[in-house]
Amino acid sequence: MEADKDISLRETSLKPEFERRLASMRANMRSAKQDAALLFSLHNLRYLFNYSGEAAYGVVTQDELVIITDYRFSEQAQEEAQQANIAARVVCRDRDRQSLGQAIHVELMRRGVQNCWYEAEHVSVGIWNAIVQENLGVTFMPSLGVLEQQRKIKDAWEVAQMQAAAKIGDQALAMLIPKIKLGVSEREIALELDYQMQKLGSEGLSFVTILGFGARSALPHCIPSERRLREGDLLVLDFGAVVNGYRSDMTRSFVAGRADSKQAAMYDTVLTAQYAAMSVLKNGLPAQAANTAALTILKASPFAQYAGLGLGHGVGLQLHEQPFINAVCTDTLRSQYVVTIEPGIYIPGYGGVRIEDDVLITDDAFVRLTQAPKNFELAI
Amino acid sequence: MEADKDISLRETSLKPEFERRLASMRANMRSAKQDAALLFSLHNLRYLFNYSGEAAYGVVTQDELVIITDYRFSEQAQEEAQQANIAARVVCRDRDRQSLGQAIHVELMRRGVQNCWYEAEHVSVGIWNAIVQENLGVTFMPSLGVLEQQRKIKDAWEVAQMQAAAKIGDQALAMLIPKIKLGVSEREIALELDYQMQKLGSEGLSFVTILGFGARSALPHCIPSERRLREGDLLVLDFGAVVNGYRSDMTRSFVAGRADSKQAAMYDTVLTAQYAAMSVLKNGLPAQAANTAALTILKASPFAQYAGLGLGHGVGLQLHEQPFINAVCTDTLRSQYVVTIEPGIYIPGYGGVRIEDDVLITDDAFVRLTQAPKNFELAI
Repeated sequence: MEADKDISLRETSLKPEFERRLASMRANMRSAKQDAALLFSLHNLRYLFNYSGEAAYGVVTQDELVIITDYRFSEQAQEEAQQANIAARVVCRDRDRQSLGQAIHVELMRRGVQNCWYEAEHVSVGIWNAIVQENLGVTFMPSLGVLEQQRKIKDAWEVAQMQAAAKIGDQALAMLIPKIKLGVSEREIALELDYQMQKLGSEGLSFVTILGFGARSALPHCIPSERRLREGDLLVLDFGAVVNGYRSDMTRSFVAGRADSKQAAMYDTVLTAQYAAMSVLKNGLPAQAANTAALTILKASPFAQYAGLGLGHGVGLQLHEQPFINAVCTDTLRSQYVVTIEPGIYIPGYGGVRIEDDVLITDDAFVRLTQAPKNFELAI
Repeated sequence: MEADKDISLRETSLKPEFERRLASMRANMRSAKQDAALLFSLHNLRYLFNYSGEAAYGVVTQDELVIITDYRFSEQAQEEAQQANIAARVVCRDRDRQSLGQAIHVELMRRGVQNCWYEAEHVSVGIWNAIVQENLGVTFMPSLGVLEQQRKIKDAWEVAQMQAAAKIGDQALAMLIPKIKLGVSEREIALELDYQMQKLGSEGLSFVTILGFGARSALPHCIPSERRLREGDLLVLDFGAVVNGYRSDMTRSFVAGRADSKQAAMYDTVLTAQYAAMSVLKNGLPAQAANTAALTILKASPFAQYAGLGLGHGVGLQLHEQPFINAVCTDTLRSQYVVTIEPGIYIPGYGGVRIEDDVLITDDAFVRLTQAPKNFELAI
């Protein structure tokens, strides 16, 4: 990212990326002998159609793209497809007069579809049963995350968005740190951070900001409360920004004032574990090996029994996406994956430390997207 | 609501409400001869278990309540159940070693469950198929929105939360209006409003704030952009707050400066339509009749062809819940329902007007929860 002013601008000509994504999806459909694919995931609609609204469904065939929505979003669907130079037909359904199953039926019949993929992970049993009733002549097959597989590899444009999101997080944190003073509440600090990220161009938040003081820092998903900061408290702050739909996800841990020896040891252990994991990252590494690298450090420490489960996850259009990095994963890391590396120690009733960065896997190492410094002790 | 300071406090002793909700659910299960019910909706888990986290699943039997989650949320589930005096057993599943289907199997076998309701509208085909594979001896039946039916009737505590949320919205809007000046962007104004609502105690936002200036006000779901306010612009602002999980949903429309005759006519038409609908509200009214009352005004106006579809919807733990009020609905409004009344006119390329309030249906009329004034012209 060269200039801050670019951060909040929407890209207007993405055609090559979308063409590649679509070509890859269609090749997968041909291999699986599927005439069409029904999309229910809004993330996948964004990925293939550049659509950022709600209440929409996609139909992909070898020679057509259709997006079925209603009056609330049809104009947006049209505009966003045009922005990316995607030749999608937008069907504006009158929900009072046509069921979703009927609208899908019209599209599948128009193309003579016999074998059709559908996203079984992204449609409810209730909605799906109703759709099947209206399309009894079609043979449906779960598509088993074919787009989620594709999405693991981030193209250059996607990486640029995630870098922009990470940079917003870095900047917002730098502006926040001087405001973390004794007596402020978790809610006040989290709200200030959320506000700053959006002022800097984040489209909403990557997720609800996690912030816990003192013993609450041991809750892996601590929702900010009225708890106020006291001297010696541990703090865990986990947050992210969004640019063009792409998310960042970063955690920093602090102590309010000077760390005691136990706190310092916890922080050193987690930081060492994170560096141990990062030091082995590269194209071709079994993801489990990164987990093992971190876990070896954590297990050799006095905090072994308090080590968190799982090292990280893919991040992109979704906060948590493939691959997942833990003790049982079977994925291999590949160039252009973006994953989090986030070891942690959580001592119930006492407090926690987690340090998390987003990294881009490269042929021989990685590039860190989140750049905020890792100073443990806060001047309060 | 007596005092502002109460707004951000979490209620700590809700037992009677939860007992009533659970007794009603169990009576429904007995009528349907179901030994157990599997819950997948987080809103329904909040309603029955006081659980506000993620990644959890509920099992209800006649003599037990079980919540299945993992290490990230088990402490929270325990605490929240205790806060409401709910005797729920929290099962902390190790996701690397036990599938969700296996965890459910253990619970159903422990109780000898043969017939089991499940929330087909709230579980994906992919997850459900995996659960069924682990529970082949059980006869599963969709529960067809039994809790959504129950949730239409809001008890006094729920109404108080929604009143508190509505009040936050009213106050935040009053603070915002002086800041709406020529040259501000949609994003800046929306962000300011979001920040104020949370400062006033809202738990995040009821939904992503909708704000459009000028022609963009005709988009029913306009996401705030960098568009800056110009004299004579129409503005549609649709937003809400959250208190203890309960949402508000309010829309106000404005013109930047003096309204011209067309704008004034649009506003008068929508306001008249809203009052026409509200004037007929009471226990026992077919919801369609409220829609007809508003539509009669809209259809008799010069803007007939631009009238929005649908008059409103229930609101509560979810932004959009039953009943839905439109031309084809079959619901009857009952005392203690809370619904939105939100007629609108949307002229593509020109602009829109929508006015929305949350109202509590009573035996002979209604109580308006959202109280913000309806002044159309902004002093810019």
